[in-house]
Amino acid sequence: MATTSTATGLQLRSTVKKEGILELSLATIATPEPKPEEVIVRIDASPINPSDQGLLFGGADMSTARVSGTAQHPVVMATIPPAAMKAVAGRVDQSLPVGNEGAGVVVRAGASPTAQALIGKTVAILGGAMYAQYRCIKAVQCLVLPPGTTPAQGASCFVNPLTALGMVATMRAEGHTALVHTAAASNLGQMLNKICLEDRVGLVNIVRKAEHVAVLKGIGATHVCNSSAPTFMDDLTEALVATGATVAFDAIGGGRLAGHILTAMEAAANRTAKEYSRYGSTVHKQVYIYGGLDRGPTEFNRTFGMAWGIGGWLLTPFLQKIGFEAAQKLRERVAAGITTTFASTYSKEVSLADALKLEEIAVYGRQATGEKYLITPQQGLR
Amino acid sequence: MATTSTATGLQLRSTVKKEGILELSLATIATPEPKPEEVIVRIDASPINPSDQGLLFGGADMSTARVSGTAQHPVVMATIPPAAMKAVAGRVDQSLPVGNEGAGVVVRAGASPTAQALIGKTVAILGGAMYAQYRCIKAVQCLVLPPGTTPAQGASCFVNPLTALGMVATMRAEGHTALVHTAAASNLGQMLNKICLEDRVGLVNIVRKAEHVAVLKGIGATHVCNSSAPTFMDDLTEALVATGATVAFDAIGGGRLAGHILTAMEAAANRTAKEYSRYGSTVHKQVYIYGGLDRGPTEFNRTFGMAWGIGGWLLTPFLQKIGFEAAQKLRERVAAGITTTFASTYSKEVSLADALKLEEIAVYGRQATGEKYLITPQQGLR
Repeated sequence: MATTSTATGLQLRSTVKKEGILELSLATIATPEPKPEEVIVRIDASPINPSDQGLLFGGADMSTARVSGTAQHPVVMATIPPAAMKAVAGRVDQSLPVGNEGAGVVVRAGASPTAQALIGKTVAILGGAMYAQYRCIKAVQCLVLPPGTTPAQGASCFVNPLTALGMVATMRAEGHTALVHTAAASNLGQMLNKICLEDRVGLVNIVRKAEHVAVLKGIGATHVCNSSAPTFMDDLTEALVATGATVAFDAIGGGRLAGHILTAMEAAANRTAKEYSRYGSTVHKQVYIYGGLDRGPTEFNRTFGMAWGIGGWLLTPFLQKIGFEAAQKLRERVAAGITTTFASTYSKEVSLADALKLEEIAVYGRQATGEKYLITPQQGLR
Repeated sequence: MATTSTATGLQLRSTVKKEGILELSLATIATPEPKPEEVIVRIDASPINPSDQGLLFGGADMSTARVSGTAQHPVVMATIPPAAMKAVAGRVDQSLPVGNEGAGVVVRAGASPTAQALIGKTVAILGGAMYAQYRCIKAVQCLVLPPGTTPAQGASCFVNPLTALGMVATMRAEGHTALVHTAAASNLGQMLNKICLEDRVGLVNIVRKAEHVAVLKGIGATHVCNSSAPTFMDDLTEALVATGATVAFDAIGGGRLAGHILTAMEAAANRTAKEYSRYGSTVHKQVYIYGGLDRGPTEFNRTFGMAWGIGGWLLTPFLQKIGFEAAQKLRERVAAGITTTFASTYSKEVSLADALKLEEIAVYGRQATGEKYLITPQQGLR
């Protein structure tokens, strides 16, 4: 049967056209012959992370999306607002593959012993172009999963687990002793809670809904503050006093939450101040924005003295900064705990073609907590 | 004549009353007997810096100010909006002296040789409570001015000069090679231009008015961008490409300027990019907010990738970080250039009593470029 051959495979492509149109499609591409140090991984599972969606949607207004093509080869077109075109100017008219990470089975390997040793192994890989049936990659980039781990279990080995570990490592490296996390009931947030429990690190969780408070309390979280509650600022300040957290990692980005966190940190710091300081507390308070669940502007009132910072935080530069060996230790911790500490849950599994259905885009495009999708590129094709 | 005695002196006081009222007054206080290592400085000149006005006005709405008392002992009262009371909660019902820096003549000294050696010398001093006729201070804290320097020339030896030098030092310490400055026609901004010309450091000046462009061009500035011009974003981007500036020091704080600077820095960085990077340029772009000329909220759109930071910058922690010896070198550079590189200009000299006149507060309270006041505490009293 042609569809079980590894000679060609489907790959999801995203193109920003210079006319201000986004085009999503499935290309059939030849699977390359692996070089000696490379392997071919049959991708069985790849998550749709928020960090994938920027590249996928290219700033398009997906409420304008229309589908053409066939069921097996759908083509989605959507309008990109003129203001958003500036941010994607660098990718105009390039057909780009998508998908940061995934997991599957090594089905072919180059001649080197390192590559050959991986044949038949279930591995997790990172590096883009994972929304595809096959991915050629260097053998050293494969994280071998513990025996018995399924590709679905191993699909999210990198982005969320390493980001959560990176937050705790950044906290320590910059002299903080506890941390704050927003949108905290997410897959990533739940991992962070488990890591902090294991490592005995204080964590203040911020969520927007009562049911998310319950989710986090259910996995052992001590401090969960609901930003929709009228007592939020007081609750947050008390949690900051209790933990001493002076760094926050914010998935939301837009709106006033980052500023509110700094304001509460300042109030917590001043709780113990001995005398009036005209420039506010001398404790450095930091918020790192690592996501953009709210794409609107960030706004704050600077009611938190002068010792503060807000900045971007990204996994790749963090991993480069700590170096290969330190990063490898983090990866091994993830592999060992992939069905426990670093387990992910998905609300739905979709094929590559189904991932381009408008009704599915409408759901996973919301990036709502508890609505994470897993692409299973072999589904419906064999 | 009693007023020429050093036994007592006037001192300006600022009190935030728990009822939400600011009170400014002149107290007559006994001049302390200097300890062996201390001296008494007769303050002849002290500037009203933006950094003094936070403590002076305590967040009060000065449009509500009323004067009572006598011409020699005026009392100013003004209402503090409830929202502003939270920020000054730590100073309620404390009568606080004001004035960061000043200059004058050492009129008495403690028994130690170091202190005795200063008698009759014109010195510049930093440390608060300078809006006064006399200030007792440690001899080692006195910066002896070059012979022939007047107290008015030496009044602003610390806050602006060390801040300007601190910006260039911070730029170097954090790996940047050129910098951006806002409200750039200020006394501080003019100093920064002279420093950058001396040190051959690239500087992008941002001002809001055509006459300020002329002021800076007149002292040799190469890059001056007028944020009121319709071409501002393009002008700024070109200046950033030309200089390679990736750090900015912003005196304004509120509004959208900090975000616009980061956006232009990102555009400048991408000008030379080889391929599309989904997370924006990897060049770290930084804005330090060191003032609050616009007290409104800070707002930005995060259209500048992930490698960015916005934070507070303050002189005192900077000086603590570099240590006493490095700071002393900066101070000596200031003293040597106090009538040239580090010269300040003032629009008006006022006595302590005149500084509390509502018509004067209305002018210097605006903190407008070219409207800086110098308090001359001996004026009108001898």
